[in-house]
Amino acid sequence: MKKISLMGASGSIGMQTMDVIREHRERFQLVALSVGANLDVARKAIAEFHPSIVSVQLKEDADKLSSEIVGKTKIVYGMEGLTKVAIYDDAEIVVNAVLGSVGLEPTMKAIEAKKNIAIANKETLVTAGHLVMAAAKKHGVTMLPVDSEHSAIFQALQGEQEKNIERLVVTASGGSFRDQTRAQLQNVTVEEALNHPNWSMGAKITIDSASMMNKGLEVIEAHWLFDLSYDKIDVLLHRESIIHSMVEFHDSSVMAQLGTPDMRVPIQYALTYPDRLPRKEAARLRLEDIGKLHFEMMDLDRFRCLAFAYDAGRTGGTMPTVLNAANEAAVDLFLKGTIGFLEIEDVIERAMNEHEKLDDPDLETILAVDQETRMRIFSR
Amino acid sequence: MKKISLMGASGSIGMQTMDVIREHRERFQLVALSVGANLDVARKAIAEFHPSIVSVQLKEDADKLSSEIVGKTKIVYGMEGLTKVAIYDDAEIVVNAVLGSVGLEPTMKAIEAKKNIAIANKETLVTAGHLVMAAAKKHGVTMLPVDSEHSAIFQALQGEQEKNIERLVVTASGGSFRDQTRAQLQNVTVEEALNHPNWSMGAKITIDSASMMNKGLEVIEAHWLFDLSYDKIDVLLHRESIIHSMVEFHDSSVMAQLGTPDMRVPIQYALTYPDRLPRKEAARLRLEDIGKLHFEMMDLDRFRCLAFAYDAGRTGGTMPTVLNAANEAAVDLFLKGTIGFLEIEDVIERAMNEHEKLDDPDLETILAVDQETRMRIFSR
Repeated sequence: MKKISLMGASGSIGMQTMDVIREHRERFQLVALSVGANLDVARKAIAEFHPSIVSVQLKEDADKLSSEIVGKTKIVYGMEGLTKVAIYDDAEIVVNAVLGSVGLEPTMKAIEAKKNIAIANKETLVTAGHLVMAAAKKHGVTMLPVDSEHSAIFQALQGEQEKNIERLVVTASGGSFRDQTRAQLQNVTVEEALNHPNWSMGAKITIDSASMMNKGLEVIEAHWLFDLSYDKIDVLLHRESIIHSMVEFHDSSVMAQLGTPDMRVPIQYALTYPDRLPRKEAARLRLEDIGKLHFEMMDLDRFRCLAFAYDAGRTGGTMPTVLNAANEAAVDLFLKGTIGFLEIEDVIERAMNEHEKLDDPDLETILAVDQETRMRIFSR
Repeated sequence: MKKISLMGASGSIGMQTMDVIREHRERFQLVALSVGANLDVARKAIAEFHPSIVSVQLKEDADKLSSEIVGKTKIVYGMEGLTKVAIYDDAEIVVNAVLGSVGLEPTMKAIEAKKNIAIANKETLVTAGHLVMAAAKKHGVTMLPVDSEHSAIFQALQGEQEKNIERLVVTASGGSFRDQTRAQLQNVTVEEALNHPNWSMGAKITIDSASMMNKGLEVIEAHWLFDLSYDKIDVLLHRESIIHSMVEFHDSSVMAQLGTPDMRVPIQYALTYPDRLPRKEAARLRLEDIGKLHFEMMDLDRFRCLAFAYDAGRTGGTMPTVLNAANEAAVDLFLKGTIGFLEIEDVIERAMNEHEKLDDPDLETILAVDQETRMRIFSR
């Protein structure tokens, strides 16, 4: 029985992680989880999985929940509560599926507590990849990617040696606006941006897919997860999202992982690695039904956010933190109707231009730069 | 330094094996080789690689070659000579790239001598898969596939567990006549059949590609190499030959190996496994330049030879030997202009219908059935 701690149970990845645990109750046990403010998810998860500990964001929600429940689940709250979930003694693997930089510190604590990390939280690697991967190495912890792209690369690397990698090819569906010109993007609405062609995901990540920032963040994550220079990480436009990513080796052989778009497959692989378990209800890939797969070169002029991400990644230090914080703030402003879609890029570009990079930042510096970047944008 | 013995140096795979050895002289040494009657290839190989032993088919060719050479290479001949190459003491790996059933006995001897086998000779597995795989298991020998399809599956299985395999998907380009109806196939010429769209190969295998028998033989080989029932081996029409084959696991994840069509890649992988070596001159896969990959369901009515192969494989015993021998005889008759392209199928069907299967045949029985099948066809 593998005991699992789940940070961010109420998000899209968190809910699908519980689907996977539900499908394999004979193998998995959910012993600890966190939700933000979604008490309904917490109530249902407690009734279904009987976790030992549940963390919520606010003290009043914790009090409310404590007064309701009849079982033995302990209710905790805040950053301290989230950290308790991250380092919960019984758990051997922590799924980090929280949104935003709040996942950073608890993840570092979990690594120090020698938990393997199934990582779905982008900020952790984008802003603190140097700290996280060094700590993982030091404590002998495996970082298990949950993103479909990184999971594909991770699967393609099984049985292979890193020295033989020629390059990674991260595929990108192109998002909601892949067939539109930049001129057409001037006046797109929030609703249009939220309509992703292949994947059903949260609002922030759907906007990031449309702007290609999502792919940019994935490139930075891939850099840290697989310890490769940015020159060895390419992005390929592949509208069907069937090939989830590829690894080219120096003998010219390319290994790829394919599948129907279903996040539960990479989530489950992270939980079962290096083994696999059946997924009875999964939609099987039938390429004969799909007929054609399309591939196009990625245009960094068309998708400026991707170019920014490569820039920030190559610059290193605190620059990826600025990239990420500025993007979060800008997407927020777009979703609120304050700025247009293309202005997301302008906000990020300005933030990066105005920032003086600090090298090898510690957690405190990262969080400070993150806050400062957001404040500066929101105060304009 | 890996010492290699090469059976069938003058064929297409043999020549490309020497290309690979040439490109990595620091790693590979060709210590033994056989050619059939192609003395020119033997002369050049002796001058370039200084093998310890070379086998030719006929005694007079051996005498001729012996009188010419100045180095220390020993010249042998016939079946005894070929076997000496197969079990040559110094070699740790034997590449079996001979054409036809002549490769069968020497391969068994090589396995008994504990040589790993890079297997490019179809007959060995198709007719004697039960003997070869049992012997390989007994002597702790690794069977390394050289065919691009089986190499793709073999690569996709690295780091994976056999119990998790849902099915293999063997891809097929469709051969020279993939866009023609059966009616159009009535009067195709030998020249048309020899014009394969993707791969440059020998005449026999190019005809087998057009008739889809090549894919049928590969299905039977896959059955033996990967120890899977025929129900778990599918064939998918994929005209670009870019995805060389795939493995679907029971979690619905699909691992595929891709590349430009170049047999030197799987040949080299068999020689370097489980490592890889650079191939500087290899054409790199650029999916953005290819643009589209196509997939279609395989039509077993359109390609009757593939249906025969599944039949023969499921029947087992001596039936695959009959399938293979009848096909070789029929292709011979087609290449000589004696029968039409579609009559290849009729010849095979009749041979299979007339044969009473013998279970678990030994080598002697296999060779006898092989001879008998050919004789019966040629004597009509």
